[in-house]
Amino acid sequence: MLPWSAELAGTLIEDVIGSEFLRGNPLDDPHERPIWVYLPPGYAADLARRYPSVYVIQGYTGHLTMWHNRSPFRQPFTETADGVFASGQAPPAIVIYVDAWTRYGGSQFVDSPGTGRHHSYLCAEVVPWVDARYRTIPDRAHRAIMGKSSGGFGSMITPMLRPDLFGALATHAGDSLYEYCYLRDFGAAVRTLRRYDGDVWRWWDDFTTRVAFTDAADAELIGLLGVAACFSANQDGTVDLPFDTRTGVLRPEVWQRWLAFDPVRMAPRYADALRSQRAIWIDAGIRDEHFLDVGAEAFCDVLRRIEIPEEVIHFELFDATHGAIEYRYPMSLAWLCQRISG
Amino acid sequence: MLPWSAELAGTLIEDVIGSEFLRGNPLDDPHERPIWVYLPPGYAADLARRYPSVYVIQGYTGHLTMWHNRSPFRQPFTETADGVFASGQAPPAIVIYVDAWTRYGGSQFVDSPGTGRHHSYLCAEVVPWVDARYRTIPDRAHRAIMGKSSGGFGSMITPMLRPDLFGALATHAGDSLYEYCYLRDFGAAVRTLRRYDGDVWRWWDDFTTRVAFTDAADAELIGLLGVAACFSANQDGTVDLPFDTRTGVLRPEVWQRWLAFDPVRMAPRYADALRSQRAIWIDAGIRDEHFLDVGAEAFCDVLRRIEIPEEVIHFELFDATHGAIEYRYPMSLAWLCQRISG
Amino acid sequence: MLPWSAELAGTLIEDVIGSEFLRGNPLDDPHERPIWVYLPPGYAADLARRYPSVYVIQGYTGHLTMWHNRSPFRQPFTETADGVFASGQAPPAIVIYVDAWTRYGGSQFVDSPGTGRHHSYLCAEVVPWVDARYRTIPDRAHRAIMGKSSGGFGSMITPMLRPDLFGALATHAGDSLYEYCYLRDFGAAVRTLRRYDGDVWRWWDDFTTRVAFTDAADAELIGLLGVAACFSANQDGTVDLPFDTRTGVLRPEVWQRWLAFDPVRMAPRYADALRSQRAIWIDAGIRDEHFLDVGAEAFCDVLRRIEIPEEVIHFELFDATHGAIEYRYPMSLAWLCQRISG
Amino acid sequence: MLPWSAELAGTLIEDVIGSEFLRGNPLDDPHERPIWVYLPPGYAADLARRYPSVYVIQGYTGHLTMWHNRSPFRQPFTETADGVFASGQAPPAIVIYVDAWTRYGGSQFVDSPGTGRHHSYLCAEVVPWVDARYRTIPDRAHRAIMGKSSGGFGSMITPMLRPDLFGALATHAGDSLYEYCYLRDFGAAVRTLRRYDGDVWRWWDDFTTRVAFTDAADAELIGLLGVAACFSANQDGTVDLPFDTRTGVLRPEVWQRWLAFDPVRMAPRYADALRSQRAIWIDAGIRDEHFLDVGAEAFCDVLRRIEIPEEVIHFELFDATHGAIEYRYPMSLAWLCQRISG
Repeated sequence: MLPWSAELAGTLIEDVIGSEFLRGNPLDDPHERPIWVYLPPGYAADLARRYPSVYVIQGYTGHLTMWHNRSPFRQPFTETADGVFASGQAPPAIVIYVDAWTRYGGSQFVDSPGTGRHHSYLCAEVVPWVDARYRTIPDRAHRAIMGKSSGGFGSMITPMLRPDLFGALATHAGDSLYEYCYLRDFGAAVRTLRRYDGDVWRWWDDFTTRVAFTDAADAELIGLLGVAACFSANQDGTVDLPFDTRTGVLRPEVWQRWLAFDPVRMAPRYADALRSQRAIWIDAGIRDEHFLDVGAEAFCDVLRRIEIPEEVIHFELFDATHGAIEYRYPMSLAWLCQRISG
Repeated sequence: MLPWSAELAGTLIEDVIGSEFLRGNPLDDPHERPIWVYLPPGYAADLARRYPSVYVIQGYTGHLTMWHNRSPFRQPFTETADGVFASGQAPPAIVIYVDAWTRYGGSQFVDSPGTGRHHSYLCAEVVPWVDARYRTIPDRAHRAIMGKSSGGFGSMITPMLRPDLFGALATHAGDSLYEYCYLRDFGAAVRTLRRYDGDVWRWWDDFTTRVAFTDAADAELIGLLGVAACFSANQDGTVDLPFDTRTGVLRPEVWQRWLAFDPVRMAPRYADALRSQRAIWIDAGIRDEHFLDVGAEAFCDVLRRIEIPEEVIHFELFDATHGAIEYRYPMSLAWLCQRISG
Repeated sequence: MLPWSAELAGTLIEDVIGSEFLRGNPLDDPHERPIWVYLPPGYAADLARRYPSVYVIQGYTGHLTMWHNRSPFRQPFTETADGVFASGQAPPAIVIYVDAWTRYGGSQFVDSPGTGRHHSYLCAEVVPWVDARYRTIPDRAHRAIMGKSSGGFGSMITPMLRPDLFGALATHAGDSLYEYCYLRDFGAAVRTLRRYDGDVWRWWDDFTTRVAFTDAADAELIGLLGVAACFSANQDGTVDLPFDTRTGVLRPEVWQRWLAFDPVRMAPRYADALRSQRAIWIDAGIRDEHFLDVGAEAFCDVLRRIEIPEEVIHFELFDATHGAIEYRYPMSLAWLCQRISG
Repeated sequence: MLPWSAELAGTLIEDVIGSEFLRGNPLDDPHERPIWVYLPPGYAADLARRYPSVYVIQGYTGHLTMWHNRSPFRQPFTETADGVFASGQAPPAIVIYVDAWTRYGGSQFVDSPGTGRHHSYLCAEVVPWVDARYRTIPDRAHRAIMGKSSGGFGSMITPMLRPDLFGALATHAGDSLYEYCYLRDFGAAVRTLRRYDGDVWRWWDDFTTRVAFTDAADAELIGLLGVAACFSANQDGTVDLPFDTRTGVLRPEVWQRWLAFDPVRMAPRYADALRSQRAIWIDAGIRDEHFLDVGAEAFCDVLRRIEIPEEVIHFELFDATHGAIEYRYPMSLAWLCQRISG
């Protein structure tokens, strides 16, 4: 009963997956992970039918059960996604909601000695686990990945790294063009860290022993620390920051490790993987606080330069900030399903 | 398993209550309402014991299932409230989560021909329903009400109107001193309504036929329309706004109807009811966007002027905005329970 | 030589006027005042010709020599005003720049025991002084007043109070509809004054003994104190604030004294004076921080309700904040001169 | 008479200097420039005495006569500088106010085919012109340079480039650490330029044919274009921007030209010149919108790394934004004069 809840036309199965890749991860995060599998209407009725699959990943600080969060006058994506299929806007698909939470708030869906092997977990454990249990079409041509913000980033890079697994993607305000989306927070971090003698770990100790986010600077620092743990951790698990915390001066070799994960810079290196994609949805809000609309334009531009055909790409800027854009997801979901179903 | 979920030491029962007062309400909102009852640890073991009860009401645009919303690095109040009892910070109590959602986003917990009889529903239906089903101490001395924002407002006025039912209250950033919390939005509303020919109903039609809150002005207008429907509706259900939507000029007689609900102005009229309270918690953040810290000071000041003893009052300002202050609720819950248990 | 300076086609005479009304004013401000008189091109050539006159007054915290301030890529009004006549956009007029600075930053162009008799100084000293020295047409039909912000306020009320002197006016973002332009700062003032034990004079002592405006709250408090000194001073020169500085609660009798000066509320009382005006220019920016666009609409609306003909009024909203709108002044100056010349 | 004007204890001479270096500059800016020379109290009385000299340069979009601008409750630097000497806070000095305005709003005090030879004009024309006309001590040990923002930048680099001329400097919020102070505006520029088909010249045409700064993006774009004209113009006078205006992607070779002018990066290259300075004042506000407090820390840090003794450096962060910090200048002026007088 709206607004409190809604019946789904399909079925959402809330399950748990045990991950060998995440066992013993450096942050002592659980290696057993919640995972949700959505089966579209009709799944149970036609036992011979197989379905394309769409993997949905979350933005930074998102964890799986937050998909159940309700907002006034809006429905959660689990319900609007169901509506895509219930209304016939798109051919039916299996939708998998994957969790990549870490103690720092996210994994960027990469393998890192700082956070754990979340890329391998996603590609080598979650996908086979799903294919083994549900009637997917277990083929990259019929498998897509989508997400927002860090989830958009993961949706850009995972098909680059594993084009054998993913043949389509959607990125909503995905992290890219790191000069604008990441670097612009470094100056503020220097300021905040003055209170902590320039030591991010003193901030971390503070952050984790009081109510989180009661300091306005918390959100920026958790993002900084978390992304550094994903992109510039060392083999022993220690984390390098890409700048001197007292002066703001970039550490070029560390910053370069970040840039190596910038989708705009990765794209030419993974041109073949990208050219093999059947559908690429890119969008962002023109008031995005992290300038991810500019990042979206840059990513789209590089796709064109590596000669990805226009018909494969959906590019769109819209009037919004970085927040509250989950109403965009059913649009890309429908579009992806139309393209990976045939 | 954190962060995805947590076990409670007590028991949270999710139920539905049918309301005769809300049947046939003017907004066609459901008259069957979700209601949650939390039973503290030990409730089932000691069948002879009776417990004080605390009613928890929500802020504007809040509805019941939003209590389940999860945030990164924080726990929902349902869990931190459980922690209050599990840890022994306060004597056990029954906590009731009440829903007062309306099509306009809230009810202000009043009876209004514009929204329905939510005050009567709360006092004359929810309270007896709880007392009939659970081992409460069915007495005003052992019954409290608490909430934030509009829920703080409801927690201030309900014990004024029904001191026979409620003997303690907590208001977190509760609506008060309307010159600052409401009136300051009227100018912005005039600006927004220029796009709608000064007609709030044209905005409403727009708002309800597109994705909500994609326009930055939506939040202010839904609050304006909703509060007007609560405070200045006519007997036929039509709603008067407290100002001319084209010029901003106040309509004194309508504005006066709003002010009649200002807790700062109500308090002297309900001095006896307030003096009968055993415990009054008042707090707010000093960066509250609606200046409810100033409202809190004004409310506290009027309590002192009607000679409520200092020991009954907990007054506190803290460094926060209006948002993300749910970490304050367990503090007031524990404090209330200590005072209504004896 | 631009951008550093510009030659005028007319002549700007910088003079000093001694004021008896201001002698012994309560703030010990100088009673000798700078005054500038601009004579249009041709003034010296045609000694028989008389000219209409336009009095220009400033916004709060403005003083006369600030008219010489230069901005990058823009010219001062003294130069753009000259351009109006040099280019033939309007018939020639004498333009008088009047100073009404006080120790609190302004006078609101009223007589007050808190600041001095600035209204009388303007009307009974400045105007005759000008008429005695320059070839004006010394008649209300050919005399206008214009200004911005507090200067716009002064331009609205002075012709209401002295229609025998002024027959035309222009208000750019003039103070009006005080619920929005003044009251919305009171909450912030309460917050700031917490640091001063609720005592505005402790703030004043601080403000005047350190570098001004190094505290972000200074601008609001100087405006509050200054306007109170103009509108709600007592006969002994003491100043009443319109709210309790610890709780924010309005003091209705003091607030009423302010409202008595609200142009929107004054207009019906001075309907005849307003109906006698030959030209009324009203404009404001739609992002004005003090919502003076809404005030402009309200003022315009009340003019229509007292049946001032449309052809007398120029009403315009434009895309701007309250700042940097001096480029609007030559527009109203030209419009006024066209209407008071015939 | 305050606040309108103030008598100086010394003498401010407003003059004009003809520049051969600026004759025929690419922007058709005047090659005759206003220049002000301030002579301290006592200058005329003791004809045998020679004085140290301090050159004062302005921030971006500043031009010479803006030094006369008056603010409420504050005095212009020309007057507070006079106060430094009148009060005996510092030994007397000659203060020279230099103009480096260009059609784009500034010159960064460098020689550029995009704007002209402002560095040469300052060093090879202004300094000798002053020394020839006034009783300076014509020696680098007794000559300092100071400024804010772009003027702070000029004050950092000019002594690096010409240590034979300048032996002391003060930088208030001087441009440095370009990743933070410049790069963070590029994303916004991309957004604005969408309205101009990605063509900064279309914006320039618009900007120069309407009232400047009526578009909120004007300030950022004039800074971008102007700085590019200073740092990355080509020999033919055309200007390269350091990023693709449609995608935001950096153009590394152009960006590198900008970075070559970053004081933090220049300092090690000019270590000897910096080590020869007798006094270096560095300050900035901790809320500087361009993060020039971080830049100040970085510049100070590099000075220490090239082993400049602590006693030569005054480093200070204070609570302010980038604006309205002219009250800092007399502090550095006094400090410099104390150090270059002996």
